[in-house]
Amino acid sequence: MPTSRNRSADGALSGRGARKVTLRDVAQLAGVHAATVSRVLAPETRVLVNEETARRVEQAIEQLGYQPNPLARGLKTRRSTTIGVLVTDLTNPLFPPIVRGIEDRLLAASYTALLANTDGRPERERHAYEILSARQVDGFIMATAFRQDPLVDEAVERGVPVVLAVRTTDSRRAPAVIFDDDLGMRRAVEHLVELGHRQIAHLAGPQTISNGARRRAAFLASMSEHGLTVLPGQIVEADAFTLDQGEQAVARLLDADVPFSAVIAGNDLMAVGALSALAAAGRSCPQDVSVVGFNDMPLADRLSPPLTSLHVPHHDLGVQAAELLLERLRDPDAPVREVSVEETLVVRGSTAPPGA
Amino acid sequence: MPTSRNRSADGALSGRGARKVTLRDVAQLAGVHAATVSRVLAPETRVLVNEETARRVEQAIEQLGYQPNPLARGLKTRRSTTIGVLVTDLTNPLFPPIVRGIEDRLLAASYTALLANTDGRPERERHAYEILSARQVDGFIMATAFRQDPLVDEAVERGVPVVLAVRTTDSRRAPAVIFDDDLGMRRAVEHLVELGHRQIAHLAGPQTISNGARRRAAFLASMSEHGLTVLPGQIVEADAFTLDQGEQAVARLLDADVPFSAVIAGNDLMAVGALSALAAAGRSCPQDVSVVGFNDMPLADRLSPPLTSLHVPHHDLGVQAAELLLERLRDPDAPVREVSVEETLVVRGSTAPPGA
Repeated sequence: MPTSRNRSADGALSGRGARKVTLRDVAQLAGVHAATVSRVLAPETRVLVNEETARRVEQAIEQLGYQPNPLARGLKTRRSTTIGVLVTDLTNPLFPPIVRGIEDRLLAASYTALLANTDGRPERERHAYEILSARQVDGFIMATAFRQDPLVDEAVERGVPVVLAVRTTDSRRAPAVIFDDDLGMRRAVEHLVELGHRQIAHLAGPQTISNGARRRAAFLASMSEHGLTVLPGQIVEADAFTLDQGEQAVARLLDADVPFSAVIAGNDLMAVGALSALAAAGRSCPQDVSVVGFNDMPLADRLSPPLTSLHVPHHDLGVQAAELLLERLRDPDAPVREVSVEETLVVRGSTAPPGA
Repeated sequence: MPTSRNRSADGALSGRGARKVTLRDVAQLAGVHAATVSRVLAPETRVLVNEETARRVEQAIEQLGYQPNPLARGLKTRRSTTIGVLVTDLTNPLFPPIVRGIEDRLLAASYTALLANTDGRPERERHAYEILSARQVDGFIMATAFRQDPLVDEAVERGVPVVLAVRTTDSRRAPAVIFDDDLGMRRAVEHLVELGHRQIAHLAGPQTISNGARRRAAFLASMSEHGLTVLPGQIVEADAFTLDQGEQAVARLLDADVPFSAVIAGNDLMAVGALSALAAAGRSCPQDVSVVGFNDMPLADRLSPPLTSLHVPHHDLGVQAAELLLERLRDPDAPVREVSVEETLVVRGSTAPPGA
């Protein structure tokens, strides 16, 4: 930790060049306690200070060129111009470009994003939320929501400005920017049906997360609309949207000994895991099995085979989430909006007619 | 922003359940100003308060079950148990697993990482540093350093605990965990020479960044040791470690009309860009041109062709950077250490004998 000379009295690391002027310096010159200087600085408490004393403090501030640190300014104006961004897993290539979109839009409005990674664990989500709250962020963008998420509900009840990105809760009480998973899944099924597939399996993402549940429901609905039966064992549920889970899901699919000529994975990472497990079982893609992913993550087009996927505009989704939050900061009572972002099918080498 | 009832007097978003007890509640019950309560809470200022008043405040605190927020506790103990982590670009797949390593190690020591993305721009690096400093982080891990980096030097001079990751400065005044680029580049050149390549080009990363400069220097040294000449135009310098820059660098290489049967890219993203530009020019990899990358980023093994690269243990590098910082927090006067992490050559499909 810094030696004491490196912290000003109000706790901030000092600015540039020589020793920074501190609150204590001002207090000393004005001949008052440091607490009095603080009181003069905050509009709510300035009235508590004798007018002559307040003027003396203000003269000392000017004389010394004292600059309250940004945190102190935040306390004063009740705005810190920082936003907390909670992300479930930055190693999922979906999230970094979304975060960039959030940052770019916030920066244009002079807000800074402070990120925390929550590892998909509710207790880390809450911890990060509390740490950032104590550091007086003006609001949150959370790409971490579970369908049942007490933390999100709690924040909404308290009037904390919160916008959800990528995922939403079943209560749908917070504004959110999410994918149109229903349309996306229908496009995936339709594409495979048009290629001639009839036995289609789904590696479902976690059902505790909106995307996982919505994609699974849309899969069943869409298959039914095409008059296709989903056999027991043709849907396998994963615990996380990861490569490992995709690999394990295909292993369970193969164990179940259920027919399939195509697999729709819960996301691209699961699709990559599926490709590994299929290759390990001696099934080639797309000759033996077609594979579709979701998200069109960066480098999905460079994989072997290039991945057919549902594309979403990552950067733009981040921009829209930031936009919703800024709207909320301007008007805390604005109606709760849900923005649904279209998923576009991008056909690449991982899908082909069955037995091609 | 939250309505006023959602912020306690000391500015933190309120805790759980019903309205949280605030500093003002304590002040009211004790019959003192809020500033007096603050003074009682901080060991440095408690002595300024009349003993009887201080006791009355402490009784009120106990009676109401008042809990100073974590920020206030941070002020009191001068430790916030948060660390600022500055990253140049989270969309470079190298960084997220390193960040995970940092977080995992910090969490084990009860520290939380707050991340900021700096987009490779010094003014954003400084802004993020100041924002996080004002929020009283206990130290920084920076994966953003330039070879000349006034911010790093300044932080070191002030005694702010700083550890550099991935990149270091020419001054080498801050502890750092970096890659052994010299050995890595030698391994890359040796591999290509053993395959029979003699005309080897290098797409150098930015020379303002240690990795870019060290890899370039090691390339020249290694080629010379193998008795190979580097022709003018066989080294092309890029402005950033990005896919686009890799693509443009190969375009310039082709324009220069200089012979090459192999390309060593500054990193994997540049290598992926190189593959695009080569394909666009009708040169296939590895038949016409072999390509080597650096970092062995996630999914490098799944690309088409799978990328030969210099592997570094990403997660472990993050763990080691966090370890160095924790060491520094325990002992601010510990000698400045530089940890060099070995780069291991992973041979995959993107390299082959010339004209294979």
